[in-house]
Amino acid sequence: MTRVLNDPDDFPAQAVAGLASAFPNHLKPVFGGVARATATPQGKVALVVGGGSGHYPAFAGWVGQGFADGAVCGNIFSSPSGAQAYSVCKAADRGAGVLIGFGNYAGDVLQFGQAAERLKAEGIEARCLLVTDDIASAGPDELPKRRGIAGDLPTFKVTGAACEAGMSIDEVEQIFNRVNHRTRSFGVAFQGCTLPGADEPLFKVTEGRMGVGMGIHGEPGIHDADLGTADDLAGLLVDGLLADRPEDAGTRVVPIVNGLGDTKYEELFVIWNDIRRLLAEAGLEIVDPQVGEFVTSLDMAGLSLTLVWLDDVIEPLWLAPCDTPAYRRGAVGAVELDTTELSQQAEAVTVEDPGGPASQDVASTVVEALDLIHDVLLERQDELGRLDSIAGDGDHGIGMSRGSTAGVEAARAVAAKGAGALTTLAAAGAAWSEQAGGTSGALWGAALTAFGSVLGDQEGCRPGLVVEAAAASLDAVKRLGGAQRGDKTMIDAMEPFVETLRGSAADLPTAWGAAVLAAEAGARSTADIVARLGRSRPLGEKSLGTPDPGAISFVDVVRAVGSVIG
Amino acid sequence: MTRVLNDPDDFPAQAVAGLASAFPNHLKPVFGGVARATATPQGKVALVVGGGSGHYPAFAGWVGQGFADGAVCGNIFSSPSGAQAYSVCKAADRGAGVLIGFGNYAGDVLQFGQAAERLKAEGIEARCLLVTDDIASAGPDELPKRRGIAGDLPTFKVTGAACEAGMSIDEVEQIFNRVNHRTRSFGVAFQGCTLPGADEPLFKVTEGRMGVGMGIHGEPGIHDADLGTADDLAGLLVDGLLADRPEDAGTRVVPIVNGLGDTKYEELFVIWNDIRRLLAEAGLEIVDPQVGEFVTSLDMAGLSLTLVWLDDVIEPLWLAPCDTPAYRRGAVGAVELDTTELSQQAEAVTVEDPGGPASQDVASTVVEALDLIHDVLLERQDELGRLDSIAGDGDHGIGMSRGSTAGVEAARAVAAKGAGALTTLAAAGAAWSEQAGGTSGALWGAALTAFGSVLGDQEGCRPGLVVEAAAASLDAVKRLGGAQRGDKTMIDAMEPFVETLRGSAADLPTAWGAAVLAAEAGARSTADIVARLGRSRPLGEKSLGTPDPGAISFVDVVRAVGSVIG
Repeated sequence: MTRVLNDPDDFPAQAVAGLASAFPNHLKPVFGGVARATATPQGKVALVVGGGSGHYPAFAGWVGQGFADGAVCGNIFSSPSGAQAYSVCKAADRGAGVLIGFGNYAGDVLQFGQAAERLKAEGIEARCLLVTDDIASAGPDELPKRRGIAGDLPTFKVTGAACEAGMSIDEVEQIFNRVNHRTRSFGVAFQGCTLPGADEPLFKVTEGRMGVGMGIHGEPGIHDADLGTADDLAGLLVDGLLADRPEDAGTRVVPIVNGLGDTKYEELFVIWNDIRRLLAEAGLEIVDPQVGEFVTSLDMAGLSLTLVWLDDVIEPLWLAPCDTPAYRRGAVGAVELDTTELSQQAEAVTVEDPGGPASQDVASTVVEALDLIHDVLLERQDELGRLDSIAGDGDHGIGMSRGSTAGVEAARAVAAKGAGALTTLAAAGAAWSEQAGGTSGALWGAALTAFGSVLGDQEGCRPGLVVEAAAASLDAVKRLGGAQRGDKTMIDAMEPFVETLRGSAADLPTAWGAAVLAAEAGARSTADIVARLGRSRPLGEKSLGTPDPGAISFVDVVRAVGSVIG
Repeated sequence: MTRVLNDPDDFPAQAVAGLASAFPNHLKPVFGGVARATATPQGKVALVVGGGSGHYPAFAGWVGQGFADGAVCGNIFSSPSGAQAYSVCKAADRGAGVLIGFGNYAGDVLQFGQAAERLKAEGIEARCLLVTDDIASAGPDELPKRRGIAGDLPTFKVTGAACEAGMSIDEVEQIFNRVNHRTRSFGVAFQGCTLPGADEPLFKVTEGRMGVGMGIHGEPGIHDADLGTADDLAGLLVDGLLADRPEDAGTRVVPIVNGLGDTKYEELFVIWNDIRRLLAEAGLEIVDPQVGEFVTSLDMAGLSLTLVWLDDVIEPLWLAPCDTPAYRRGAVGAVELDTTELSQQAEAVTVEDPGGPASQDVASTVVEALDLIHDVLLERQDELGRLDSIAGDGDHGIGMSRGSTAGVEAARAVAAKGAGALTTLAAAGAAWSEQAGGTSGALWGAALTAFGSVLGDQEGCRPGLVVEAAAASLDAVKRLGGAQRGDKTMIDAMEPFVETLRGSAADLPTAWGAAVLAAEAGARSTADIVARLGRSRPLGEKSLGTPDPGAISFVDVVRAVGSVIG
């Protein structure tokens, strides 16, 4: 269990600070994570990797020559905010574009996607690379749905080597797709880890049993099974991976045996001995095996086997030199330290030009509305937390409360400097997303930003523009979150709201009131089935009769806004 | 806990085999452990490190260019046998002598000492280097009594770099003494590990408490204390080490934060953050900090802080390049693989020349006596185990049984080839020591070998020679084991035995019988106090009234021999 800590809330930040100071020749801290301490020439494509913390050496342990240019470090097992990702990407950018690599988890997709959008808006080419190596998380016909586990190591290493070799962003992206497609992992878990400040493990596995295909945060796997011998387990993992070979696999493989934290080196060497024999018996040629801790989950017990099916393109990139805190290979040659000062604070949305007088009036109404939203969400925090604890990880109440607090403060600050509605809502969205964290934080950040982009920074407001803005918010949330109506998310409340608003011939206050009622009906409808969720926290089943907390909080927000409209 | 295994008995051997095959460019297996896979020139002093298994990266993870030449891998937390150590040293020797580095534990001192004697007998200069960094294990006035923990890393790294730099064995030994004196560690444990095949941890610490100064196998520390925050713990460790500075410490230190297995990287980075601040506040200059897992204890929870007080000699050696499975630094340049075939079996004592006819007769009596010893020890196995389980780890019965089985088989094999008494007893001693393992195995191996060296390979036997041989055995056991009469060991039976035998004017059978009675009285006397033992397994106190099992088994052995004498 996690025992060495000061304040659980500060644990991830203190761990990153300690990490950066332990490797001053490799890492320098920047808001949101770490960047290379060594100088990198202009014109090199940057690779930024990341995700939640708690997986060291992934991801910050891989920053350095020949590997990644920066790592975004979220809270423990939680996606970083878009602002964190943006900050690290800005520090890593050398004018040739930024590739953002991460495991395929909903929150990461959202937050890193948001950062990529912000970079592109500034003219920096930015693309997301989603690792999808875990064969247990979806079938071979649904490769893009698979999540990323220990395959992060080879896919990022090969991609980083391609960047270092001077390839263009298009070429590197193709290399990533190639190695990601040829990298497959299969793991088992014996016991959960305890989060900092918690007394009990995140999940438990019956002694002598194991969760086959269980994810690195305890996400459900294929089934439970008896633990058996090391040889039995080796057979299970090898058979699973050989049955899931990519087309044109070839016969040369890099096997990676990864311990999750509590399953130690000696155990990994014992099972490697069995895996090696089985791979040889299957006629495979073993190249450069890796046995150790690469992608951990605090002190979780378990391990995974990854096979990287080599080809002529991947092999030299995998074997190329690199020098990072936790992964070194060959000699990278002389390096010098980069003396650039990096920001230790989120880059605030600035007020370049004051808004038009009419839009400044709209901005002050926006601040008023955000104030009301904030009051309501503070009051509803415990209830939303209670709802979320049934289906999720119980942090929806605190997340919405933190997000709205940060949002109204940021909005008030820029409005006081004369910002128009667009700038005010963009500032609120960025702050909300950063402080709330997680999926809902990113979605609310995107929703506010999209709302503002319709209102603009010059003109005043009219009822039609509000309807259009609400529709734009809905589009942003659907695009970023990927959920559809019926998926038991906030969309089930948001889409009826926008449809009702758009379809109404009444005045705005009346139409808004009707839309709120439609949203409420939609939110209630999310309680009518048992839906299994695929999120990064260990979730059970949504209980029958418990509505989705995201849909409920959407109703809370639009009802609060109604009193400003009216 | 340890979950991934096939057969608990084969766990260490399978782990070493897996390790060697996972790093084919660094390691090649040899009986007893691993040697460098890369070619090493003649004339370089060899550094062989080792000890029990279960501490990876220590020790086999440190074999390679710029670091160690070989590692001896014992069973989990158990000293390797002298034959294992001898085998690895022979593979590592390049004609300039062998330095054998290990932590200061009784069993290791014995077994590695025995190997060094065997090498020296062959004309290979061999010396032992004892790491004594743990400040909790003895006071500053008793530095040589301290045991070795995470200080193994810097002391061996610096020593290996000195070997690589082409220094003579005298110079390297001085370097080791220098860095060992300037390396101090202080650790805490939160929870024990489970040995392969066991269901319960080796020891338990109450949740929320910690064992301060507890050893890496659970040896008792200074006291228990509340766990506190990371900052509290950092203060405890830093204060302890600063109060124990070597003279001429200087102000430049390499701090090493070492996790024992279950206390993970993020926790280590958090406490490093606090340690760094405290060291800086104390006016120290931090050089090249190390934070990670270096000397583990399977999945034990806990950590230690080591300070290496640099000087002009140590610093460049610490920073010199090296390339090993688990520790890499800088670039070691081009290397090539060593194609020498290494032995995968213990080197048997060979029969170079047949013994004289009279000595061949003595040899057949020796085999007869060993057969009787073997029968008795097999019969007494459970009782000796029971006695040992009260004060020790319960393996004395099985160890004596295994040792005597191997001893009589080896003796019979060489006697059949015409060996004299010396060669026959040397073969028995080597086999006993190797198969029995542990402290008593090494002592019995030395006793038999010393007995034989008096009898020689040519002459027949006479009563006076038997007395002299028994006295030589006693001397060997006292020299190697370091115990004196009254320390509640087998010496308490053996010394009265030899004194009575030597002082008797009667015929040998009568004198032997009286000596057995004196030994028995001596063995009983070991039960009369409560004596705390300082061994590597977690021991309690010897219970009042329980005699030392080693003294008891000595009586068993000499009584059995009596029937051959008579």
